[in-house]
Amino acid sequence: MLFFPPKEKRKEKCLCLQTRADGPTPSPAAAPDRLPFSRITPEDLSFFRTILPGRAITDPDLLESSNVDWLKSVKGSSEVLLRPQTTEEVSQILKYCNSRNLAVNPQGGNTGLVGGSVPVYDEIVLSTALMNNILTFDSISGILTCQAGCVLENLSLYLEERDYIMPLDLGAKGSCHIGGNVATNAGGLRLLRYGSLHGTVLGLEVVLADGRVLDCLATLRKDNTGYDLKQLFIGSEGTLGIITAVSVLCPRKPKSVNVVFLGCETFEQLLKTFQLSRGMLGEILSAFEFLDSECMRLLNTHLKLLNPISDCPFYVVIETSGSDPTHDGEKLHNFLEEAMTSSLVTDGTVATEDSKIKGLWSMRERVTEALTHEGFTYKYDISLPVERIYQLVTDMREHLQDRAKSVVGYGHVGDGNLHLNITSPAKDPALLAAIEPFVYEWTARYNGSISAEHGLGLKKRNYIYYSKASQAVSLMGNIKAMLDPKGILNPYKTLPDNLK
Amino acid sequence: MLFFPPKEKRKEKCLCLQTRADGPTPSPAAAPDRLPFSRITPEDLSFFRTILPGRAITDPDLLESSNVDWLKSVKGSSEVLLRPQTTEEVSQILKYCNSRNLAVNPQGGNTGLVGGSVPVYDEIVLSTALMNNILTFDSISGILTCQAGCVLENLSLYLEERDYIMPLDLGAKGSCHIGGNVATNAGGLRLLRYGSLHGTVLGLEVVLADGRVLDCLATLRKDNTGYDLKQLFIGSEGTLGIITAVSVLCPRKPKSVNVVFLGCETFEQLLKTFQLSRGMLGEILSAFEFLDSECMRLLNTHLKLLNPISDCPFYVVIETSGSDPTHDGEKLHNFLEEAMTSSLVTDGTVATEDSKIKGLWSMRERVTEALTHEGFTYKYDISLPVERIYQLVTDMREHLQDRAKSVVGYGHVGDGNLHLNITSPAKDPALLAAIEPFVYEWTARYNGSISAEHGLGLKKRNYIYYSKASQAVSLMGNIKAMLDPKGILNPYKTLPDNLK
Repeated sequence: MLFFPPKEKRKEKCLCLQTRADGPTPSPAAAPDRLPFSRITPEDLSFFRTILPGRAITDPDLLESSNVDWLKSVKGSSEVLLRPQTTEEVSQILKYCNSRNLAVNPQGGNTGLVGGSVPVYDEIVLSTALMNNILTFDSISGILTCQAGCVLENLSLYLEERDYIMPLDLGAKGSCHIGGNVATNAGGLRLLRYGSLHGTVLGLEVVLADGRVLDCLATLRKDNTGYDLKQLFIGSEGTLGIITAVSVLCPRKPKSVNVVFLGCETFEQLLKTFQLSRGMLGEILSAFEFLDSECMRLLNTHLKLLNPISDCPFYVVIETSGSDPTHDGEKLHNFLEEAMTSSLVTDGTVATEDSKIKGLWSMRERVTEALTHEGFTYKYDISLPVERIYQLVTDMREHLQDRAKSVVGYGHVGDGNLHLNITSPAKDPALLAAIEPFVYEWTARYNGSISAEHGLGLKKRNYIYYSKASQAVSLMGNIKAMLDPKGILNPYKTLPDNLK
Repeated sequence: MLFFPPKEKRKEKCLCLQTRADGPTPSPAAAPDRLPFSRITPEDLSFFRTILPGRAITDPDLLESSNVDWLKSVKGSSEVLLRPQTTEEVSQILKYCNSRNLAVNPQGGNTGLVGGSVPVYDEIVLSTALMNNILTFDSISGILTCQAGCVLENLSLYLEERDYIMPLDLGAKGSCHIGGNVATNAGGLRLLRYGSLHGTVLGLEVVLADGRVLDCLATLRKDNTGYDLKQLFIGSEGTLGIITAVSVLCPRKPKSVNVVFLGCETFEQLLKTFQLSRGMLGEILSAFEFLDSECMRLLNTHLKLLNPISDCPFYVVIETSGSDPTHDGEKLHNFLEEAMTSSLVTDGTVATEDSKIKGLWSMRERVTEALTHEGFTYKYDISLPVERIYQLVTDMREHLQDRAKSVVGYGHVGDGNLHLNITSPAKDPALLAAIEPFVYEWTARYNGSISAEHGLGLKKRNYIYYSKASQAVSLMGNIKAMLDPKGILNPYKTLPDNLK
């Protein structure tokens, strides 16, 4: 079913494995034809080798992993991987590429789910992996400044030793880079408590397409001197500039963390449990996540994870973080008592120790991994008014009947963010045609977002109009043209093909 | 001392009262010459009267207050005040003005402190005062959508009845409009707890200079579909578009609020008290504000407010907001005991009742008002690493010696935001010359911001380079040129005159 071009042409083709599979009519997600960028010459390689001695990689084996995304759904054919260590090097690379009209694919931890982090054709891969230094940390204000290639988990460990935490946490933390997190406006598990990166990122250093370095690396909580330019780059998926350094406001490490894992009979009861938790846990509530029984089945089957409570249609992971273990314990106790008494939850377990906390969290965090064992997965990351989020799963099941292997729902209740995943033994164009545009039209009907936190990348770019007005998309195009007139930065991503 | 042009020319002149007074050499803050915008004709007035029946005001008496800012430091000479009620009317106005090359001054509550909210010459004043409808409120998510002209305090009252609060609060709440708050990225008293508007504003509707309506009025916590365009308008001071509607994420109304007013012997002790409060009050800390003894003297003298505790060099207002009165009371008690035992604070009083809470808050909130009775005040709104903020006051006192009547410091310790105010019996060019550029150079030396939350407006626009790199300012100019090519929106504001 895969679209494989003739061998001699492969270098020019995007093996967009998922999106090329949906039949003779090209899907809106399919990659457009290669744009007329220059092709890399021996002179180009020679230049890169001079400025990046030993760090301009052309060995096909070493390039392999940079060309394929984590889901193995998109495969590019880049012939060179550049690994700069400094902002100055990034600047030199982009200045050169812009003058030579060479396309560039910025790459962090390559953990994205929408094909945004890999080349589509032969774009040069510019990896931030060697830009992994912490620059400053102010233990009074909790403001961290670091290079873009720092791995999120490493930053978390560094901060925890200093009594702080990162304001974001996500399943991919062991691989994802903070620069990539910012470029994709990653959400994750702590957004409910600490808000989005638009609020917690205080400063950015960005290299623009022509090599100019834009220094907005402030370390102040407040700064109203002109337009807040850094905001433009948060969530722009590397299409407007390459983030080389980040400053971020970090919360204090909580003195007390509790995690509870609960079971609910209906989604309505789950929502009532959420409302109750907001009232009774208040300021110590730091996460409210859910998974359905289908997710639990996959965790059991593929990862041998055992359900810590009795079987239920819905499961909830609630985390509290606070400054007083006694107070937090009391709030949690009162909340659980009320939830049980009101029959909102049918079973549950509480963890206060690190290892058990990690165990409960893994029930939620490893759903994505469990899904990879299912064959093929069609993934959707939808934002909706919270009372609607599970209705989409139910409606999709009814709509697809037995065409899908399974239709599972999990996600961030607190943020109104559903991860809808539909699996089949292998890629199935007929199934895809049944899912899309149904899922997008359903979402648009309720004023939802067709990409809550994953971004648009290659795969979702053409669906942007389901969530954004055409005036807005048109203005995005103007901004792209202003900052990257030759379009060399992460082409074929984020913006739709039919930009007016 | 004021610069008064010949009478017949007055309509063309900016009576920039503060900034024209600093001697024969024009201050960088002085208004530049009037730009070659069209002048309003009877045909223009006729058009406005047709689309805004009874709401195109030309009576000079009614125009008076729209032409002068709250500080009475800038006076324009606009001849028409437009009061649209709908987005469509704003769109028609801007489309017309853009085609006619007529300059427009968007105006909310006109409470700004940097001359950004009043015309400089004869710009048309477009007031949002009649756009004051609440559009929707979702009591599950706490997301409010309203027109731009809603007064902040009215929104607060509306929400409090529904068990929510606005995520921002400031002294001008009785007059300021939410649209103006967003346009100036207002900070205020709750930023420490709920973060900046870049995080809490979920959506905006904006009318662009040419009348196009940009609908980014999402009501979702997460939406990563393309660039986050609304961010551009937050803090752009009406120079990129006119905000007509806002959606904002509102926190739950706390069940328990406490305010303490404390005295400290030194600023170092005050900082230690701040650190202690962050550790011991943790997630319930919602404000940490300070004022010095000079502020207290002005409150006594001009507003007859009595010091609620014994005289001290420094005073602190701490607010806690939480979900459990007993827990909050215990945390506060433990904190106060520790602060007293460690001799960090010398005296203090606690309020839990609304009227006493308001009384204690007024000691902090009414400093600005007390200052207006001092004669003339030079105002600075500086962001710095928190451990530096009072050093600027001390250094300024030493630098000015007896040239100033008083040099006072107050502000938001939690945000590293100092309000430095220097008073004199009347405007004093020699004093101003002693203050500036000293204050800006001092701030730049410590990587501070020369406008933490007030914005740049007319008065501070030319000092932008003290806080922003020239590449960044240049990019701001590009964005302005892209969105408002004729420059009709709030001219002479925010961007410097010598934009490269």
